Amino acid sequence: MEDPVKPLNILMLSRLLILACLSAVGAQSFAQSDPLSSWNDGTAKQAIIEFVHKTTTPGGADFVPSAERIATFDQDGTLWVEHPMYSQVLYCLDRVPAVVKAKPELAKVEPFKTVMSGNRTAMAKLSKDDLFKILAATLTGMSVERFKAEASAWLENARDPRWKRPYTGLTYQPMQELLTYLRANGFKTYIVTGGGQDFVRVYSEKTYGIPPEQVVGTAGGTKYGYGADGKPFLTKEPKLLLNDNDAGKAEGIHLMIGRRPYAAFGNSTGDRQMLEYTGAGDGARLMMLVLHDDEAREYAYGPAEGLGDTRVGTFTQKLYDEAQMNAWTVISMKKDWNRIFSFEQ
Amino acid sequence: MEDPVKPLNILMLSRLLILACLSAVGAQSFAQSDPLSSWNDGTAKQAIIEFVHKTTTPGGADFVPSAERIATFDQDGTLWVEHPMYSQVLYCLDRVPAVVKAKPELAKVEPFKTVMSGNRTAMAKLSKDDLFKILAATLTGMSVERFKAEASAWLENARDPRWKRPYTGLTYQPMQELLTYLRANGFKTYIVTGGGQDFVRVYSEKTYGIPPEQVVGTAGGTKYGYGADGKPFLTKEPKLLLNDNDAGKAEGIHLMIGRRPYAAFGNSTGDRQMLEYTGAGDGARLMMLVLHDDEAREYAYGPAEGLGDTRVGTFTQKLYDEAQMNAWTVISMKKDWNRIFSFEQ
Repeated sequence: MEDPVKPLNILMLSRLLILACLSAVGAQSFAQSDPLSSWNDGTAKQAIIEFVHKTTTPGGADFVPSAERIATFDQDGTLWVEHPMYSQVLYCLDRVPAVVKAKPELAKVEPFKTVMSGNRTAMAKLSKDDLFKILAATLTGMSVERFKAEASAWLENARDPRWKRPYTGLTYQPMQELLTYLRANGFKTYIVTGGGQDFVRVYSEKTYGIPPEQVVGTAGGTKYGYGADGKPFLTKEPKLLLNDNDAGKAEGIHLMIGRRPYAAFGNSTGDRQMLEYTGAGDGARLMMLVLHDDEAREYAYGPAEGLGDTRVGTFTQKLYDEAQMNAWTVISMKKDWNRIFSFEQ
Repeated sequence: MEDPVKPLNILMLSRLLILACLSAVGAQSFAQSDPLSSWNDGTAKQAIIEFVHKTTTPGGADFVPSAERIATFDQDGTLWVEHPMYSQVLYCLDRVPAVVKAKPELAKVEPFKTVMSGNRTAMAKLSKDDLFKILAATLTGMSVERFKAEASAWLENARDPRWKRPYTGLTYQPMQELLTYLRANGFKTYIVTGGGQDFVRVYSEKTYGIPPEQVVGTAGGTKYGYGADGKPFLTKEPKLLLNDNDAGKAEGIHLMIGRRPYAAFGNSTGDRQMLEYTGAGDGARLMMLVLHDDEAREYAYGPAEGLGDTRVGTFTQKLYDEAQMNAWTVISMKKDWNRIFSFEQ
């Protein structure tokens, strides 16, 4: 008589084999699809993974309901290249000839005269007040639709002189992965930038998957009026509503989001208060600063030895000390990122 | 010999019967779950259904990608009762004794003296400037957390004198159904209110399913500072950033959302520009105004004959004419809504 148990064993065995195969496939596909593959193993990557695990594990002490999962990102120097100059400032300088063409009397007036001269050395020495005059002249006085069309056209055609690529192509691949990873874990990702809110909104969705309503930035007022056809439209006004830098970042987050973030990412002193404000909340919070310490692959500026001074994206020793004291994670572009741009090999 | 076709016919017949039963169940459950069941059949309900059908039918001329589906709602008089006085003003008046207790010198100063007298007739005559003084004294000068706690406690305990219910219980059931219906069809619903942004954000999620970041309202500045414990916090300041009424609603939508709505709902002259701005966009748009013409079930005020004058939620003849001219739909609470409050039978 045949052992009646035998066929069952074979069945069980084959099931186990199938399970084992499936597990192997699963493990392999997991390894291949590391959502943070441009990050080297290390404290920075580990901090991100641990934070997400803690805040999304139901029943855990640090669990955060998905509606409250807010993550805020500075843009210039945190999500994309800010050297040698902020892209939006380059946009404004490039717009000056068109502004002067429309108002020829400006050609003889500073700071427009210097910009029209094309002398880059003289332009680099323009004061903050001069820059404000250029921003006001190039960013206001037109309808929001016309501004959007002009900025879109520039972004399409302008090229970074070093990489010969559109500025929107110079985003950091590890930060793109981080945005995607956080969103996949129920976080709502916001840009909180010192740059112009209207400017960044032009490309945020296409470039970062962040819709315009999740961009908080330095914002001017608009004025409601009617065109010759009776249709209403909004004109951009030279009136500052929100200076989204320093303390303005925390204030802007309250104004525009109304919730304290659980995670905040920056790279300069302008991001200090945003990180402080985030860290002052209860439970698990993640605060990170990008340190530009890779001259070969990008730029090198900041507090560590051998890094240059800069007027654009200052990361002072004081900020570094505050990061150490508050256990904010400093991301070394050189050590923590195995790839900076998506177009790298 | 038996007819071989017969069993098949029986099978088919039973299948048809099952299908018929399922259809009947389906139709019945559909009838029971009309998402707009508090709306009577009529032009208003029809306008909503047609708008949603047009904007969500893929391939249709008026299809709108879900990321762009923005609907904005005024609050006072559109989503909940605003008579005899805006709930937030009642909150501010109720807060005056606590403010005077903290600063006794105010007891002898107008308008606080009048409020402390408890004379409702005198209080109703307070000027706009006096009201501003009361708003500034009761809504600013504390941390955003303390304000939130105070407003929450008031909302919990305060009762509307007519219905003896919390103010958050006096939302309009048909509008709640509309919010849910639009969200079920991929629309992102926003409150765009002349009321205080921070005040409405306290209860918007629980009351309307609208998260704080989707509340645009009249907003004051905040000031970043540090407590004795070194922790940063934001203090509410008596500095107006956005007066979210009239043209300010269109400007506020641009500032806070950055997209033109496809649908907008209001009830007073303060909503005019929001509806105009929405209607000035391309494709299918839906603009609606709630008319308070049901004295028995709620209140009656507005342009039609027999409706009373009011300082709270003015719906002028001029606005009515503009609605007619632009094919905005006027919702008659009396005729279009078979139920106004969820607690009605």
